[in-house]
Amino acid sequence: MEFSLTTLGTASALPTANRYPSAHILTVHERLFLIDCGEGTQMQLRKYGVPFHKIDHIFISHLHGDHIFGIFGLLSTFSMAGRSSALHIYAPEDFSRVLEFFLSRFGEGIKYEIVHHPVCTESPVLIYEGKSVEVYAFPLRHRGETYGFLFKEKTPQKNVHKYLIGPYKLTLFEIARLKEGNAILRTVSRKDDSVVESRAVATGDIEDRHGETDGTDDYYYQLLAAEDFTYLPYLPRRFAYCSDTAPFDKLAGWIKGTDLLYHEATYDSRLKDLAVTTCHSTAAEAAECAKEAGAAQLVIGHYSSRYKDPAPLLAEAKEIFPCTFLAKEGTKFEVPLKSFKKK
Amino acid sequence: MEFSLTTLGTASALPTANRYPSAHILTVHERLFLIDCGEGTQMQLRKYGVPFHKIDHIFISHLHGDHIFGIFGLLSTFSMAGRSSALHIYAPEDFSRVLEFFLSRFGEGIKYEIVHHPVCTESPVLIYEGKSVEVYAFPLRHRGETYGFLFKEKTPQKNVHKYLIGPYKLTLFEIARLKEGNAILRTVSRKDDSVVESRAVATGDIEDRHGETDGTDDYYYQLLAAEDFTYLPYLPRRFAYCSDTAPFDKLAGWIKGTDLLYHEATYDSRLKDLAVTTCHSTAAEAAECAKEAGAAQLVIGHYSSRYKDPAPLLAEAKEIFPCTFLAKEGTKFEVPLKSFKKK
Repeated sequence: MEFSLTTLGTASALPTANRYPSAHILTVHERLFLIDCGEGTQMQLRKYGVPFHKIDHIFISHLHGDHIFGIFGLLSTFSMAGRSSALHIYAPEDFSRVLEFFLSRFGEGIKYEIVHHPVCTESPVLIYEGKSVEVYAFPLRHRGETYGFLFKEKTPQKNVHKYLIGPYKLTLFEIARLKEGNAILRTVSRKDDSVVESRAVATGDIEDRHGETDGTDDYYYQLLAAEDFTYLPYLPRRFAYCSDTAPFDKLAGWIKGTDLLYHEATYDSRLKDLAVTTCHSTAAEAAECAKEAGAAQLVIGHYSSRYKDPAPLLAEAKEIFPCTFLAKEGTKFEVPLKSFKKK
Repeated sequence: MEFSLTTLGTASALPTANRYPSAHILTVHERLFLIDCGEGTQMQLRKYGVPFHKIDHIFISHLHGDHIFGIFGLLSTFSMAGRSSALHIYAPEDFSRVLEFFLSRFGEGIKYEIVHHPVCTESPVLIYEGKSVEVYAFPLRHRGETYGFLFKEKTPQKNVHKYLIGPYKLTLFEIARLKEGNAILRTVSRKDDSVVESRAVATGDIEDRHGETDGTDDYYYQLLAAEDFTYLPYLPRRFAYCSDTAPFDKLAGWIKGTDLLYHEATYDSRLKDLAVTTCHSTAAEAAECAKEAGAAQLVIGHYSSRYKDPAPLLAEAKEIFPCTFLAKEGTKFEVPLKSFKKK
């Protein structure tokens, strides 16, 4: 039940000898989601052993070169590697021009479908729903149309408390129905307490029948309510991706309670003026956003090439939000399972 | 007087964890020429410390993604790094569509001129002439229009033999004129052998005047012929770039006598059928070309991703052409100065 972010590119507009343009892999269970696709993404995927045939969904925040120039090579490589399943790309509307150019000039022989889902919104909106995750897009404040993404793990199926299975002699049928959230209504013999019938019912229908005697007086009803017998194995996790953006009031509210936040931190606070001019954030602003959103962990990246070592950015962010980490090429940030307190 | 090839990308269509798509730097004296520009070229240039602001000329062999997808990032980076001088790109005619797309979608703020010189030829043709080098394009046999390039170092200015300067009391004026290929005609006093006049002349005009007496009989003429006093400091060097191509008869003749040959070797001979189908060469065919062209050194590259280690390709080529080397990311192949035998 993995839920992790792998940072593949931590550079801003100008890559350096060791820092690549933006690209990130979010792993949710068995699925991989690619977020932004700067130049060299396919090489970084190979270098860090990411099984990229598992990528069916790509999310592009905006159409600046350092977030998009790897798409041409990746789409070509998918084709040469024999891909046949559809690839879904969630990107601003204007991405259609990029895709059209690619397909018209380099698309010969591509046998898989590429579906562009245009993103266009002024507030958070659901753009993808899969088996394990929902993805919401929300606008950022940058030069040109830019979106952030919030990945919400879906609520998992409930488990039945093991310590109740024996005493209640729960059958496989009953366990399966309880996990689905149904109640179980049993007809039990008064003579030997044997269960003569068991059926799944919506709790509301039968609440008043528990213990009630049937017509013959030989049997009584027993109600097993889902909430007494089951628990959520873990709490659904959240990841928010915010790059590139100037800070703005609504942002923290939109990503409230995220477990992991990736937020760009192009500059340190001494370069605040430059951050304002270029619509980027300082490390302090990234940390303020994490704090306000009540995030559990913050990962910063998208460092200006002027920082040979991004340590000063980390120090600045940690002053405000101690649980901050530096993105680095190939580093994986895991969000552990969060359990409810079991009954 | 450097003349060297640095290989930055040795992969064929599918890059691997360690092998990048095609990109090469030819250094001729102080100038850098970029040959092909696969995805990640700008990162490779940085990684291997190539001062890429010195690149004013880019040569693109053909418009397959693995030779071209790095151009978008490089052109953007040149802009962000404040480039103002013109950039010249020699590429097939259809490159104009690639450039047009780039400029229309990502060209905002580009302040330097990008000049596309369309290459279109069926036999070797001069496409660039600079201070130190001439570049010829010639057609290759690949899927789609593809060109190879022959870089010819220009003949250097001659040097004057140092051991003749003293005995002949050569003046700076005379040395400069001799280096330019002129002869010197001196008027010398019969009394004390002093030079009373010295002038540069085309050799043909004055051959018959050497030792001749002037009207007064007080002077005689002395002819210093350029070929007796000067020598070429080194022989001009040549580099030929052949990628991607199936073998064909005329090729070796077009690159005759090259000092250094880069030739693709995508497959080994066991995969000859695949090489034929895809219009590529085997290592043996690359070596045959080098042998027939009388090359001094052969560098092979563009390895299929199936070769985790390209050693078998090297072994195959060396059987035919012993002076073969494997291209590797960041490796520099130098062509040393070749001297004439001095008089």
